[in-house]
Amino acid sequence: MTQSLSRRLFLHAAGAGAASVWIPRPGNVKGYTAAEMRQRAVNDRLEVGISKWDLDTPCLCVDLDRLERNLDRMQTTVTRNGIASRPHAKTHKCPAIARLQLATGSVGICTAKISEAEVMFEYGIEQVLMTTVNVTPRKIRRAMLLRKRCDGFTQAVDTAANARDLSAAAKEAGVVADIVVDVDPGGHRTGITAGGPALELAQLVDTMPGLRLRGLLCYDGGAQHVTGFDDRRRRALTRLEAAADTAAQMTRAGLDTGIFSGGGTGTYNIDHETPGLTDVQVGSYVFMDAQYRAIGGKDSPDVYNDFEMALTVLTTVLNAQYAGRATTDAGAKANTINRPWPIVVGETGITFTSGSDEFGTIRYEADASRVYAVGDKLELIVSHCDPVVNLYDQLYGVRGDVVEVVWPIAGRGKSI
Amino acid sequence: MTQSLSRRLFLHAAGAGAASVWIPRPGNVKGYTAAEMRQRAVNDRLEVGISKWDLDTPCLCVDLDRLERNLDRMQTTVTRNGIASRPHAKTHKCPAIARLQLATGSVGICTAKISEAEVMFEYGIEQVLMTTVNVTPRKIRRAMLLRKRCDGFTQAVDTAANARDLSAAAKEAGVVADIVVDVDPGGHRTGITAGGPALELAQLVDTMPGLRLRGLLCYDGGAQHVTGFDDRRRRALTRLEAAADTAAQMTRAGLDTGIFSGGGTGTYNIDHETPGLTDVQVGSYVFMDAQYRAIGGKDSPDVYNDFEMALTVLTTVLNAQYAGRATTDAGAKANTINRPWPIVVGETGITFTSGSDEFGTIRYEADASRVYAVGDKLELIVSHCDPVVNLYDQLYGVRGDVVEVVWPIAGRGKSI
Repeated sequence: MTQSLSRRLFLHAAGAGAASVWIPRPGNVKGYTAAEMRQRAVNDRLEVGISKWDLDTPCLCVDLDRLERNLDRMQTTVTRNGIASRPHAKTHKCPAIARLQLATGSVGICTAKISEAEVMFEYGIEQVLMTTVNVTPRKIRRAMLLRKRCDGFTQAVDTAANARDLSAAAKEAGVVADIVVDVDPGGHRTGITAGGPALELAQLVDTMPGLRLRGLLCYDGGAQHVTGFDDRRRRALTRLEAAADTAAQMTRAGLDTGIFSGGGTGTYNIDHETPGLTDVQVGSYVFMDAQYRAIGGKDSPDVYNDFEMALTVLTTVLNAQYAGRATTDAGAKANTINRPWPIVVGETGITFTSGSDEFGTIRYEADASRVYAVGDKLELIVSHCDPVVNLYDQLYGVRGDVVEVVWPIAGRGKSI
Repeated sequence: MTQSLSRRLFLHAAGAGAASVWIPRPGNVKGYTAAEMRQRAVNDRLEVGISKWDLDTPCLCVDLDRLERNLDRMQTTVTRNGIASRPHAKTHKCPAIARLQLATGSVGICTAKISEAEVMFEYGIEQVLMTTVNVTPRKIRRAMLLRKRCDGFTQAVDTAANARDLSAAAKEAGVVADIVVDVDPGGHRTGITAGGPALELAQLVDTMPGLRLRGLLCYDGGAQHVTGFDDRRRRALTRLEAAADTAAQMTRAGLDTGIFSGGGTGTYNIDHETPGLTDVQVGSYVFMDAQYRAIGGKDSPDVYNDFEMALTVLTTVLNAQYAGRATTDAGAKANTINRPWPIVVGETGITFTSGSDEFGTIRYEADASRVYAVGDKLELIVSHCDPVVNLYDQLYGVRGDVVEVVWPIAGRGKSI
């Protein structure tokens, strides 16, 4: 797998059968009932093989050729740089894509929530690092139940009190829970302070019954969207310095630092410079979006084109009877209201906004490349992929214009 | 039902059984499979009767006492003003609430999308006005199939070409489709121009085989959120003047104007002044939100308190180890990024933002009424109810602090 992902591997990894409809392994499927899967299989089969332009809209599509090239580009780069990828499933919430990531070399996936981890495991994903702490008794119980079934489940901790709660719950559940210490990169959003506090917590976890220390994580979300490669590099490396020192101290103290996870799509080709870092929690690279497009790349200051725009929303024009504008069927409930606004694929001089819940608004500039009629369909590059994916129940995988697979977004709405 | 909705009616209308779990009528349920409903019933029963503070978070709750008072306040007012309510289900996407609205006097419900109309009908709602046009062959076919099963389904049209398409599809499906002409209030988002063009379209519909003209609609979304009652009243009445003239012309021409639907929560006590208007498409009044709170009421310039804040998101503090701030588990995927930001219930000097996908951020002002610890739960009034509801699969109905019902948000994600 150096140049591209073969179609054979693609279909194999995604679990697709002869009809190219992705049906998860029966033994592991709990996200959909058997009856529901049968119904899905009927509905999905109707849509496989048709042109994407015949789909009802608004709908969410991923260009499979681009997705495969994005997977390959990421894996090739991190491998060359001596680190691994541990992609974040909060972006795609789609077990089929998680499988592709694992099949092409990722060491595991990350999830943001326990419900997301549960659904990924139910669909057969067994290497799951949950990057958020579980603090309530109900969530801790769920995490231990998951750990009991899933050998590869690892969770984050960022206070001594939480470590004690996890230890007690692990003992009660009869499991040994794998733990990473979440270290704050300085944004104070999550994690414990690097240096002494983090080291002390790691030592505590290491000695507690029912817990097994596996390393640390340090994610600086803010660094990912810094515009300009040099500024982004400076920010990312500076913000991870203290965590790297902590990792070195942990190693010297004889603690496990087998996992030192951090970084994302914006810094995937920077993070290997942080000493000791083992893997990047990259998410958006599979799909890309207008927000990432704007940050600029290492070799292209204006547009971040390391990865291709693979995710689009299709929408239909509903009203075209007024000068200078048109209305489509994809509003905030199909696009979110993130900025920059979605980009109309293949056109110039046309702006699209989704400030209205149910309707998208097209406005034509003087040099607009076309004027739409009622019933015309257009394709949008989404503003921010993660929350847009979270609005849809299924993702149409298209090759050229043809629908090849229909993937359930099984993690949609799993925000608990 | 002049003062309040009795508990008996509430449970009856919502279809709740002895265990207070809402199970839709078996004959009409197609949104959930039987197996899925059994699983839901088990899960939901576990949560009915517990304190809302014991729910896993983030979760969406509606205060049932407030909801009932909001229903009563709306119905009492429109009845006194000689018009009807035809609430918009795009707000709640919840068949149980649609039933409560019908049980307390609403003449029907509205939906924004064909998939929303389908799911409402599947859950037993039979009076459905779809306020958006169906323009593609697939959607028109779906609309005719729905009309075939649902006597009370009426749909909008705003071009002659679309009327011809609907007529052909109705004939093919062997139905007579009920139609309202959608009239543009001047925003040019949807609808045909009032006066001559609208009258001509109404006459065309009236003569076309397979179609039956039922009247018109004219919805000015922009008027709903105009701050200040007098400005809002002026805008709403001005914007509907031309549609009212059109309605009068239609009546004089012998056309049916039995439906002249318009208006919303912001103008519910204004719209009866528009001559000929029959009903208001009110939505947000059932829940309310921070956006509506800010528009000011007739008797209270600063806060719109005609209806009570009934909808909240519960969230849990995950990180409280840094001065001046805390992090919770409800970010943009639980709250959207609409402004104003959500309001923390019962506290002062505490701001909450949900700009981050997975995490909410609390910041304390100098006079903050409290400081949170890890595991503490707080309640948020949402910014804009419609898109927030669209993120959740279920709505917890709570009375006081106790979970009384768990309602499926069956229309969630039905944006097609």
